[in-house]
Amino acid sequence: MTNYVDFDPSRRLLVRRRSQLALQSLTMDAVEQSLRKALAEKQSAVETQGNAVRALKAAATPASKPEIDAAIATLNNLKLEKSSIEKQLQAHITDAGGDGSFSKEAFRQAVVNTLERRLFYIPSFKIYRGVAGLYDYGPPGCSVKSNVLSFWRQHFVLEENMLEVDCPCVTPEVVLKASGHVDKFTDLMVKDEKTGTCYRADHLLKDFCNEKLQKDLSIAPEKAAELKHVLATLDDFSSEELGAKIKEYGITAPDTKNSLSDPYPFNLMFQTSIGPSGLSPGYMRPETAQGIFVNFKDLYYYNGNKLPFAAAQIGQAFRNEISPRQGLLRVREFTLAEIEHFVDPDDKSHPKYSEVANLEFLMFPRDEQMSGQSAKKIVLGDAVSRGIVNNETLGYFIGRVYLFLTRLGIDKERLRFRQHLANEMAHYACDCWDAEIECSYGWIECVGIADRSAYDLRAHSEKSGVPLVAHEKFSEPKEVEKLVIAPVKKELGLAFKGNQKMVVESLEAMGEKEALDMKAALESKGEVDFYVCTLGKNVAIKKNMVAISKEKKKEHQRVFTPSVIEPSFGIGRIIYCLFEHSFYMRPSKAGDEQLNVFRFPPIVAPIKCTVFPLVQNQQYEEISKLISKSLTAAGISHKIDMTGTSIGKRYARTDELGVPFAITVDSATSVTIRERDSKHQVRVSVEEAASVVKDVTEGHRTWADVWSTFPHHSSASADE
Amino acid sequence: MTNYVDFDPSRRLLVRRRSQLALQSLTMDAVEQSLRKALAEKQSAVETQGNAVRALKAAATPASKPEIDAAIATLNNLKLEKSSIEKQLQAHITDAGGDGSFSKEAFRQAVVNTLERRLFYIPSFKIYRGVAGLYDYGPPGCSVKSNVLSFWRQHFVLEENMLEVDCPCVTPEVVLKASGHVDKFTDLMVKDEKTGTCYRADHLLKDFCNEKLQKDLSIAPEKAAELKHVLATLDDFSSEELGAKIKEYGITAPDTKNSLSDPYPFNLMFQTSIGPSGLSPGYMRPETAQGIFVNFKDLYYYNGNKLPFAAAQIGQAFRNEISPRQGLLRVREFTLAEIEHFVDPDDKSHPKYSEVANLEFLMFPRDEQMSGQSAKKIVLGDAVSRGIVNNETLGYFIGRVYLFLTRLGIDKERLRFRQHLANEMAHYACDCWDAEIECSYGWIECVGIADRSAYDLRAHSEKSGVPLVAHEKFSEPKEVEKLVIAPVKKELGLAFKGNQKMVVESLEAMGEKEALDMKAALESKGEVDFYVCTLGKNVAIKKNMVAISKEKKKEHQRVFTPSVIEPSFGIGRIIYCLFEHSFYMRPSKAGDEQLNVFRFPPIVAPIKCTVFPLVQNQQYEEISKLISKSLTAAGISHKIDMTGTSIGKRYARTDELGVPFAITVDSATSVTIRERDSKHQVRVSVEEAASVVKDVTEGHRTWADVWSTFPHHSSASADE
Repeated sequence: MTNYVDFDPSRRLLVRRRSQLALQSLTMDAVEQSLRKALAEKQSAVETQGNAVRALKAAATPASKPEIDAAIATLNNLKLEKSSIEKQLQAHITDAGGDGSFSKEAFRQAVVNTLERRLFYIPSFKIYRGVAGLYDYGPPGCSVKSNVLSFWRQHFVLEENMLEVDCPCVTPEVVLKASGHVDKFTDLMVKDEKTGTCYRADHLLKDFCNEKLQKDLSIAPEKAAELKHVLATLDDFSSEELGAKIKEYGITAPDTKNSLSDPYPFNLMFQTSIGPSGLSPGYMRPETAQGIFVNFKDLYYYNGNKLPFAAAQIGQAFRNEISPRQGLLRVREFTLAEIEHFVDPDDKSHPKYSEVANLEFLMFPRDEQMSGQSAKKIVLGDAVSRGIVNNETLGYFIGRVYLFLTRLGIDKERLRFRQHLANEMAHYACDCWDAEIECSYGWIECVGIADRSAYDLRAHSEKSGVPLVAHEKFSEPKEVEKLVIAPVKKELGLAFKGNQKMVVESLEAMGEKEALDMKAALESKGEVDFYVCTLGKNVAIKKNMVAISKEKKKEHQRVFTPSVIEPSFGIGRIIYCLFEHSFYMRPSKAGDEQLNVFRFPPIVAPIKCTVFPLVQNQQYEEISKLISKSLTAAGISHKIDMTGTSIGKRYARTDELGVPFAITVDSATSVTIRERDSKHQVRVSVEEAASVVKDVTEGHRTWADVWSTFPHHSSASADE
Repeated sequence: MTNYVDFDPSRRLLVRRRSQLALQSLTMDAVEQSLRKALAEKQSAVETQGNAVRALKAAATPASKPEIDAAIATLNNLKLEKSSIEKQLQAHITDAGGDGSFSKEAFRQAVVNTLERRLFYIPSFKIYRGVAGLYDYGPPGCSVKSNVLSFWRQHFVLEENMLEVDCPCVTPEVVLKASGHVDKFTDLMVKDEKTGTCYRADHLLKDFCNEKLQKDLSIAPEKAAELKHVLATLDDFSSEELGAKIKEYGITAPDTKNSLSDPYPFNLMFQTSIGPSGLSPGYMRPETAQGIFVNFKDLYYYNGNKLPFAAAQIGQAFRNEISPRQGLLRVREFTLAEIEHFVDPDDKSHPKYSEVANLEFLMFPRDEQMSGQSAKKIVLGDAVSRGIVNNETLGYFIGRVYLFLTRLGIDKERLRFRQHLANEMAHYACDCWDAEIECSYGWIECVGIADRSAYDLRAHSEKSGVPLVAHEKFSEPKEVEKLVIAPVKKELGLAFKGNQKMVVESLEAMGEKEALDMKAALESKGEVDFYVCTLGKNVAIKKNMVAISKEKKKEHQRVFTPSVIEPSFGIGRIIYCLFEHSFYMRPSKAGDEQLNVFRFPPIVAPIKCTVFPLVQNQQYEEISKLISKSLTAAGISHKIDMTGTSIGKRYARTDELGVPFAITVDSATSVTIRERDSKHQVRVSVEEAASVVKDVTEGHRTWADVWSTFPHHSSASADE
């Protein structure tokens, strides 16, 4: 299953889709191929034998009964064999389609039911029948979100001394014109020609192919291969190609079966108008990064005109999806947390790199993807020193992201860092890795970590006329040899017309070696083929179109555009994956029902502790209130549950919210503290209760330590 | 100066302005009146004497030189006297216009300069020349904001066990139609008839009157009185009245002097479109409250179907101001923190009320405003028991807001709770108090605390068809006598046409006494005058238009719409006022310049501590890094400053950011810790430094305690 989930829209601007990975997993494997072939042969044998039987019966001189019976027996055998192959194929497809996708669906349903029932999420504006792609965080969800953001701030902003900013969501057009969003942040859409209902064109084609492959076993192996190929490559389809396939396959509107319009681009930004005149178009920002880029100059000054430094921003971003799917993973409004780390392009070392170099985790480099291998454990320092990860700073952030996610409770066996393939990256990007988390929807991109080179700052410098650059003063003037690439715009304009700008940009972005190779080739051959990423094709560059030279100059300082390394976090996606990774079910004590548990670590848990009087009496209730007061003073979020419900039910209720500890008041002097996952209980004095919970919640001591310090409490009736 | 600053838009929907308070402060005082009168008399005397002089000179038989000289001397004396009165009047106006508004302006400029220079704020999209009414929080501002929000969450959500939710900003039209924003959330606008530039109509009229009053001393006292009256009442002007005044005074477009269009309403919500069809209008929410109201049913269930409970939300809100003014106080996008406390209308007591009842602070009840007195200190408990504050729950929140603001560092002498006047409140509201903070712009509404009765839940019940109600089950069935008000919609429709709905609502909202009085009056007279708030006038109700009766019923439960008490916080405004209240200047040691200081309490300070090696050497730098590591581990946000700048300059730099403590490394074994405001320093061992700073930052010990525990360090050269 492809999972097209890049929430980083600026990347999406420049290369629309990831396809080769998809190709690898969607290409028919040998087993499927042979099964499909066998099925087609068997089908044809069945038909032949069926004809033979009919011929025997209808012959001018009818065959003998034993002869006919024998032929029918053969036919039945063939049918049985065909059915057996069908079953194998079905099983194989289902399996390949997601390692048991039916149980995954059921698991997801159980998680989502619990999440909605306990108000982790609420479909927004539910009493008005909701709006697709908009969700509220209810009380426990809101608390989890706020905990995740606090930890993010601690782990990144505070520990790294980042400069956090907070910019508005409403953004004037000029900014998003410079960034490319106004022109290129689009999806292709088709309309039901009668009702006007809109669909994402690629979704319809994808659904058609998947449906056909999974439900219609009778299709020829060649047809199956073709559909698989379409699935693998459709992310790269142009508007025309998509339209042609939709026509060819006769795809119609899913609900009405009406015919569909040709595909056309739809801009995914929510548009609005700033001020009363109606003359200042604006958009709700599709990412938070632009707010940082436009402030580069001030932030650089704030940092004492020194590199490297990082700026960070947490905030809402908006995307007017054509037809949101994948529930909580693809929404129209979401919280992003983004870091822009500005660094000298000539020195991408990182002072704290050694602190993460020894980490080992699942990585999925480009080469392994291309050669059909799977992700494997690699020591980060090796990946950097072997050049798999482009530079130390990028490596440092990969390591920090790994620590962030696993400390939140993401299962490290279902977390991998996948490198972008060459065709997934923009021409200006050095290297790019996604932290992908596996959940019931497949591997989901939750954090993108990209070395975006100087692209963004250059785009805003050009559009605004304000140079967004850094300076390095030399102690004494230096003689430098500089590569000068001077595209001849007139000639390029004549040759490439509307594409001129993209060709110019690609020429200017060449590295030293590439440029000198081109210089040599132009001198010898007069013309070279040159690949322009943004056009997705080669163009012919002639000698008169570009001057490449090396010049010597005396310089007192170096003025340069910093590179930016951007870790960008989809907070809602991380939280959703965390929910799936934390969820499990266990039988109730009576064994008559399954109880839901979220095994949140205390740092994430929406409530750290519940306080229960074992039975309803005034004394226990007063002690409970006393403990509650101490917990409040200690800053531990908690809840008292004074209802008369059985203690087992009350435990089950808080397990379902992921509350790690419960204090039960069952005497005037001491209470029990229960840990959620082990269900172990210790006995602690009333006075100590709050501070023990505080220590174990804040990580000053472990539960194992508590368990070995205090007397154990075993209660036959207490738990579930 | 009126300060029209209600950020609570739902209140604004129903009564546009606050006017009587303005009236009181804008009515000419006796001094001004007598000065204006004296000036007019003197002016006329000057004219008469001038004529006399000219007559003497031009007479057929010219007067003697001494005679003429004497007349001229008299004229000059009169001119001097006139000039002296002018000066007095000018001084008086300036003073009344803001207790020395020039020094306030200068103070504000000093604060704002510091805020912008140190990147507390940045005008958004500055490199593109910005957008009026949009500001970024730069690093220290962002940190202050995040500290204020954390404390808000601690003080309200955690301590009160509130249900926090997080809803999207994008909101479908139906929700804001129900709340009234689509129809009524407007300001009156005029357009420059040639250029199309838009202005707020009331602003232009206000500016004209103020300008005339302050700059043109020659206007007659009657004219001055008229302008003052316009200023005092223009908030209640209809579109027609505003247009008439603009015409009468010949007010033109400020920049071009072109003529202006008639005023017309402009909706202040940012409009957008949800999804690709263009058929689903949506808006960026103008407040966060609606997200809570539409979730009432789920939240009530989550709370175990029990009242009272409170829900809370922190988030962005949007307002497409016609022409933003007042810098950081009136912006187009801002952070609100809102609480909706749902309570049984028959029982508005609060269990924790006694914890705040003894607080004493500045309150400004309705009666004091009407009788021209000023705010005075009142014990909260007295205000509630004397019925000045409507109920305990409202009182409780007033007290909690007072504690919140003063703990943040708001000066309690410049904080008052002002009760809304009768004409400021919606017809459904029970009582409403604003926490107003005095800053250079005057008294600014920063928190609104309103008992909104059942209005919002009823509006959404009606529009969505989903009953948003609470239940109280009786232990045994009760016989109840119920007031039934049954408006006869047909008759009302015939009589009031488009206004029918508003009349019906007002009839239904009558209290028992009012309704029974009406019943009696209708029976005796057949017709009564009835004031409809939402129409702002009386209408004649006839006997056939409404049936009022008392009925007896047996009931098993009580079903009712809860009342909601809403404290609503404008976070940006609170922060701006906090900046002004925290700012002061002190001379540098050399006395040659003024140094800026923000006296933030540690809870608010963007950075808690700076670490300085006294001089640049490796040993001191390593110790600084060690201390920095301990501070990070303790969760104390801090900064190392290794620059070679003088220690005095470095102190001054951090004082300007409001950093409360500085650790200076000046030996291998011990360091000094300096407190920002006293500039006192103590000497502490390297090992203890971080924990001392942690304790004093987190309030576990006071600076006085630290000062008395550790040896004092006096440094002749160190500080400024």
